[in-house]
Amino acid sequence: MLDAVVFNEAGLIPAIAQDVDSKEILMVAWMNREALQETVDSKRAVYFSRSRQQIWRKGEESGHMQLVKEIRLDCDGDVILMQVEQMGGIACHTGRAHCFYQKLDQDDQWQDSEPVIKPASKIYPNKDK
Amino acid sequence: MLDAVVFNEAGLIPAIAQDVDSKEILMVAWMNREALQETVDSKRAVYFSRSRQQIWRKGEESGHMQLVKEIRLDCDGDVILMQVEQMGGIACHTGRAHCFYQKLDQDDQWQDSEPVIKPASKIYPNKDK
Repeated sequence: MLDAVVFNEAGLIPAIAQDVDSKEILMVAWMNREALQETVDSKRAVYFSRSRQQIWRKGEESGHMQLVKEIRLDCDGDVILMQVEQMGGIACHTGRAHCFYQKLDQDDQWQDSEPVIKPASKIYPNKDK
Repeated sequence: MLDAVVFNEAGLIPAIAQDVDSKEILMVAWMNREALQETVDSKRAVYFSRSRQQIWRKGEESGHMQLVKEIRLDCDGDVILMQVEQMGGIACHTGRAHCFYQKLDQDDQWQDSEPVIKPASKIYPNKDK
């Protein structure tokens, strides 16, 4: 499985999480070999956090896990696409349903276009403690 | 518009093209500042080809242009998502509707799961001449 996957010079591949029902793009994050293998084995989305430089089991803190229903690879082997069931209906760390909430308007300005379902302070109550 | 966009150390950002009607993910490619600006201005998808190291106006050779209906940016500002109308119904250079045709099966093997609509030799008849 891993042999066909093309990781970049940092050993990472971008992975898209798409909602299996609504088909909305929830988020894009990165996986290393270990994260991809664990995702395949556990059927839960596991990424590699570039900022923390460690394995990131999505939802471990927030409870917003992603149950993986299907995994695809693109023609070049360098992008992963997952169909997922999003626990809690919130994929973004900002408390929105998905991460792509900045929409370009007619004046070429980015506009926040998605409501915050749950404030980040309630998703991560222990963050600054 | 460009100020909010986070390009990587190579000056690039990944851009996802999603079919505005079917919501299928068609492809992922990269944009530099120039490609993104031209995409916004022309409302046609323009990428930066990493292999050729030049601006890549999608469909210039194949006719399979992408008309851009909406552009979004994610929470970190480092991924672009476009809603597009795919000309010719073929996004992939392999002649398939989209690039994510390799699907992981129950034995953890990648299986080609999408038909070739038009062979690449007919899409790019002058490629090796």
